[in-house]
Amino acid sequence: MLGTELEDFLALQHSVLEDISGEALPLLDAVRNLARGGKRLRGLLAYWGWRGAGGAALHPEAVKAGAALELFQSAALIHDDIIDRSDTRRGGPSVHRIFSMAHAESDWHLDGSHFGSSAGILAGDLCLSFSEEMFSAVGPRAAHGTEARRIFNRMRTEVMAGQYLDILEEVAGPGHDPEHAVVRALNILRYKAAKYTTEHPLTLGGALAGARPEFLAGYSRFSLPLGEAFQLRDDVLGVFGDPQTTGKPAGDDLREGKRTVLIAYALSRGSEDAREEITARLGDPELDDDGVDRLRGILRDTGALEATEELISRHTEAAFSALAALPLDDVPRAALDALAHSAVKRSA
Amino acid sequence: MLGTELEDFLALQHSVLEDISGEALPLLDAVRNLARGGKRLRGLLAYWGWRGAGGAALHPEAVKAGAALELFQSAALIHDDIIDRSDTRRGGPSVHRIFSMAHAESDWHLDGSHFGSSAGILAGDLCLSFSEEMFSAVGPRAAHGTEARRIFNRMRTEVMAGQYLDILEEVAGPGHDPEHAVVRALNILRYKAAKYTTEHPLTLGGALAGARPEFLAGYSRFSLPLGEAFQLRDDVLGVFGDPQTTGKPAGDDLREGKRTVLIAYALSRGSEDAREEITARLGDPELDDDGVDRLRGILRDTGALEATEELISRHTEAAFSALAALPLDDVPRAALDALAHSAVKRSA
Repeated sequence: MLGTELEDFLALQHSVLEDISGEALPLLDAVRNLARGGKRLRGLLAYWGWRGAGGAALHPEAVKAGAALELFQSAALIHDDIIDRSDTRRGGPSVHRIFSMAHAESDWHLDGSHFGSSAGILAGDLCLSFSEEMFSAVGPRAAHGTEARRIFNRMRTEVMAGQYLDILEEVAGPGHDPEHAVVRALNILRYKAAKYTTEHPLTLGGALAGARPEFLAGYSRFSLPLGEAFQLRDDVLGVFGDPQTTGKPAGDDLREGKRTVLIAYALSRGSEDAREEITARLGDPELDDDGVDRLRGILRDTGALEATEELISRHTEAAFSALAALPLDDVPRAALDALAHSAVKRSA
Repeated sequence: MLGTELEDFLALQHSVLEDISGEALPLLDAVRNLARGGKRLRGLLAYWGWRGAGGAALHPEAVKAGAALELFQSAALIHDDIIDRSDTRRGGPSVHRIFSMAHAESDWHLDGSHFGSSAGILAGDLCLSFSEEMFSAVGPRAAHGTEARRIFNRMRTEVMAGQYLDILEEVAGPGHDPEHAVVRALNILRYKAAKYTTEHPLTLGGALAGARPEFLAGYSRFSLPLGEAFQLRDDVLGVFGDPQTTGKPAGDDLREGKRTVLIAYALSRGSEDAREEITARLGDPELDDDGVDRLRGILRDTGALEATEELISRHTEAAFSALAALPLDDVPRAALDALAHSAVKRSA
């Protein structure tokens, strides 16, 4: 359903772009290619949030809201990959890389890497606009003044602010009181990732179906810790994951200099030497396998990995116990239970 | 009115960001600073498009629609300045420069220029989301299925596709049949700038007030040539304008390698030598005053400047004669006449 909705929408956009110029179509192809992939966790959470609050099965409003969330996620990924200088996404080249590769293959002029980033900025902008176009098509239940629209607006602002705090931490982090590194990293994780990945989609679906505030608060008690566990797992996989299953080179998050909760624990618990080594190596794009192994060793020896795993367990337990307390019918309960399991117990 | 609407909206967003973290506020400050400036041509055209179609004076729906257009314009400028590597905007530093300067002043780590671009991408994304949030607040007359919403959606897609064609032309242009350079440049000008600057805002205002299709077609006959004349004037000022009044260094468009209609005329009319010189110098960030003068000479000698001025005159005449034919009351007619004059007869 969600896939069909996205395909139909993007086919319509194809004809809009074709009217302007056939040469503009690669911009749409890049968006379409990305939007076709992924786990669609957000779209599914919105749908089951809707069903759990009594919304009818396969209802177009819930499907459109989920499709809008997936388009927003694609837009965020396109821009994130420029910001993080990630050349790969879902096992293939990232959007900006597709354009810099086209530049190289066509033997075009000027700076191909800048052309790639510029086209990536525009592809992300287009996808962000598509997300909104899709969300407004949900209709009156998502119109100005509704709780669903309020959640959608809040989500976008929080993700962008959270992402800014994240890049600020990368550049300002090392000299910026290490004893509060964990608190800052947890705040970034909450706004940039946790609320956005799980809480906003689930409550948005519920709000669309007309759920009352107490019901939505129950959704938050389940989905916020779930999102936190999900992102912490992501952070662990970014350093310790198997490239075969994650689709990203080993230790890529270390080369990108991501200042995750895992790193923050090591900074706040490590010796002066460990801290200096982290500061020196983290974000070095040339970091080799030995460097990755050294940092992994520090993350283990300082207890940072263990502390992160403990936090994942704690949040996971909180999420499942809140899910058990939700007044849900059997079908949505089973679906949310399966989604929650896939979010926290994964290797990719 | 429009200014107050924007200030109130941004004050509300300030409290949203403050809840996340005070450290995220520079992102909002950058947006606010930019949104406060500018000629507000789009917001004014939407307002007078509304009034011309019989909409009530100072009506909040028309003001909100205009504010949404101004926020969209700010978002587009923030991202354009990254793409065009423009360090200045409206006489001050561009948004990405504000962040790279903050990086330098605070003696932060890693690459300050990349931090600046990354923060600029996020500031633009935030502003693009704000634009939509404001537009949805217009209410039922701008909801899914209305003509106003259709225009707003179409505008965003056209601007982004037009901007992509523009950067493609910059890299692919020189080797890419010069005899069609003028046709391509006119297409880019139409989608990236002309429709967006004048036609979409005016017709959007009219549609919001419930104007019929024939009335909106009259608006298009006036505003599309007006927008084309406006942008052609902009292109001439980007090469021949006085830095004192434009707020941009002399010849900046040449250093940025902008492939305007002016340049396309020179490429299609010039000798082989002139063509080679343009290709060699255009887009050279180190181009000095002598280089700027050489290119200006070619633009004059090939008749490119004259041809562009002729086109400006032709479009200007078409716009004013279409305005005369519009069935408007005196007040909106006078306002649109004044806006049209300020758009095409300007030095900055």
